Amino acid sequence: MVVTILVDMFTKRRRSLLEKARKKDCYIVCSATPQNVFYITGFWGDGTAVISEDGTTLFTNPLEGERAKRSVKDCDVIVSEIGESLKELVLRHVSSKGKLCFDDIQMPLQITIKKVLKDDVIFDPDIFHSVRRIKDEGEISVITQAGKMIDKLFSHVLTLIRPKVRERDLAAELLAKAVSFGCDLPAFPSTQNPIIVASGPNSAFPHGDLTERKLLEDDVVVIDIVVRFKGYIIDTTRTFALGRVQDEIKDVYEVVRSAQEEGINAVKPGATTGDVDKKVREIVDAKGYKQFFIHGTGHGVGLDVHEPPSLKIGGKEVLQNGETVTVEPGIYIPHKFGIRIEDTVLVSERTKSFTRFTKELLVLG
Amino acid sequence: MVVTILVDMFTKRRRSLLEKARKKDCYIVCSATPQNVFYITGFWGDGTAVISEDGTTLFTNPLEGERAKRSVKDCDVIVSEIGESLKELVLRHVSSKGKLCFDDIQMPLQITIKKVLKDDVIFDPDIFHSVRRIKDEGEISVITQAGKMIDKLFSHVLTLIRPKVRERDLAAELLAKAVSFGCDLPAFPSTQNPIIVASGPNSAFPHGDLTERKLLEDDVVVIDIVVRFKGYIIDTTRTFALGRVQDEIKDVYEVVRSAQEEGINAVKPGATTGDVDKKVREIVDAKGYKQFFIHGTGHGVGLDVHEPPSLKIGGKEVLQNGETVTVEPGIYIPHKFGIRIEDTVLVSERTKSFTRFTKELLVLG
Repeated sequence: MVVTILVDMFTKRRRSLLEKARKKDCYIVCSATPQNVFYITGFWGDGTAVISEDGTTLFTNPLEGERAKRSVKDCDVIVSEIGESLKELVLRHVSSKGKLCFDDIQMPLQITIKKVLKDDVIFDPDIFHSVRRIKDEGEISVITQAGKMIDKLFSHVLTLIRPKVRERDLAAELLAKAVSFGCDLPAFPSTQNPIIVASGPNSAFPHGDLTERKLLEDDVVVIDIVVRFKGYIIDTTRTFALGRVQDEIKDVYEVVRSAQEEGINAVKPGATTGDVDKKVREIVDAKGYKQFFIHGTGHGVGLDVHEPPSLKIGGKEVLQNGETVTVEPGIYIPHKFGIRIEDTVLVSERTKSFTRFTKELLVLG
Repeated sequence: MVVTILVDMFTKRRRSLLEKARKKDCYIVCSATPQNVFYITGFWGDGTAVISEDGTTLFTNPLEGERAKRSVKDCDVIVSEIGESLKELVLRHVSSKGKLCFDDIQMPLQITIKKVLKDDVIFDPDIFHSVRRIKDEGEISVITQAGKMIDKLFSHVLTLIRPKVRERDLAAELLAKAVSFGCDLPAFPSTQNPIIVASGPNSAFPHGDLTERKLLEDDVVVIDIVVRFKGYIIDTTRTFALGRVQDEIKDVYEVVRSAQEEGINAVKPGATTGDVDKKVREIVDAKGYKQFFIHGTGHGVGLDVHEPPSLKIGGKEVLQNGETVTVEPGIYIPHKFGIRIEDTVLVSERTKSFTRFTKELLVLG
């Protein structure tokens, strides 16, 4: 029964991709990026997936062959010989089947195939993004489970935050707990770690590196947890306080909290990404913190940590039922402190967060 | 004093990149990939770095601005306004300065600049790779420290491997220790986690996912640790055994061990990547395991987990003094077990591994 639902889910995705491709006169859809290969086949690893009316085929190397065969759903697997190039295999398979659409321009396989098939190859990453944006029932169920894990992780944070703990050690314990719960640690190239623990003045860096700094009495601590569960990312931030909390911190916290909550209320099918950003930014600006809100309001999230749409100033994209996006305003006072509150939410008429962990300012230690 | 050495190191890198670019008639070198931006500027994050005869400039957004200013070495930092696009800033800076070389074709910034400057823009990732391949003194010192951490991590593994422990929990404890030691967790898109713990039949998957499987008496356990330290990757694998070890496992282990040691002996300036692969493969083939050695012998390693050169069948690239590469033969008997031994080594007349942890088969539990 479960298998049937899974196969149906993959069939639906493949059909949607082929339909989008057909509008560009293409009859084959091709990907070699792990996220899209996973989306098409159920296998996460090295390989190239090809969808056509004849069915779906995964081409991979002997290193991945056995694991691929076990992972794919309703999909042929063709494994190259040791030392044999995959390019020839893929090329033979796709030749004279009509125009082909790749999701990514950069990789050697794509470049080779483009050289041979010339005008019969186009590159269009948007085909995948437009289909991936709307999450199906299976995806929403997985992200819902991931949300529950985040709640457990933030509860665990309460036992870890205390004076004299190093940022790095706090992050280490949290990462271990996440992996133990069944989460994987995603690749996000421009930060060095999937979890941010930024304390005291470090919290003023939205993407703070992990440091050896020890938490002090009266610190603010920003904890941004990004984990992957069964393929899907969830991205959530809470800010905690230690010891006596200065009034300025309390004030800023309340601004961020109300901006974030109003932001979630503004997330609705039909609203533009710019509408949501504007709502959030107006609240921050009205309180005099305009210059300290130094990033966008949020981003799409799914198989990638950051994917379309971007919730930013002037954003024109229209939010759709079933999308998952973050809402994450922050205020960062250089050399002093920063505060960010972030949820991953499901876009719907009654948009709600995948996490339930409190947004009250918790004062610990 | 330390600062002087650092600045000299960056000056040397930038000069080498400009020299390589000049051979292609380019006078500006540009990157927006975190690894190359770090290599040029010392900052790891979102941004675009531009090198010319006039100096080096990092363009970044307000989110990263403060952190960037603290991280860069001998480099101007230009931060956009909130909501302003970096493209315009970069375009203005590089216009009418002569031909420009980008390292990557794929990103919106590059595509925009190419559209405007047309034939004055070329794409060539190899310029960076050819310079990055040869590690300088500072880089070798960092990787040497990373090697000592790997030794400590494998010593810690000895306390973690025992029957009934789940693969996932073992990995969790090891990740926590690594982060605590000062390591970061790198992004490698085609695997879900930076540490592989593959036990029993799972060890026959070279890139095994973390599972809930509990270690059993008489298991083989492959542990592949990939961590980043001060920017640089080290990639090392050891295989352990539990309980009573079958003769077949002992035999295969000795084949892999001798192949790996002979492989390291074959790594020398002037040898080709194919020479090393051939040496290793001959030992495995001679013992009758040809069909079970299902991947290449190794790969370059540095700011990326996998970078040129690839040590594979027929590889023609010539190894050079100061490169860092892995040597990692493995034998994988489907549904039964797999064994891999891997070191990251420094290419020199007396090539040696950055790690000293024993390659004897350790039988635990």
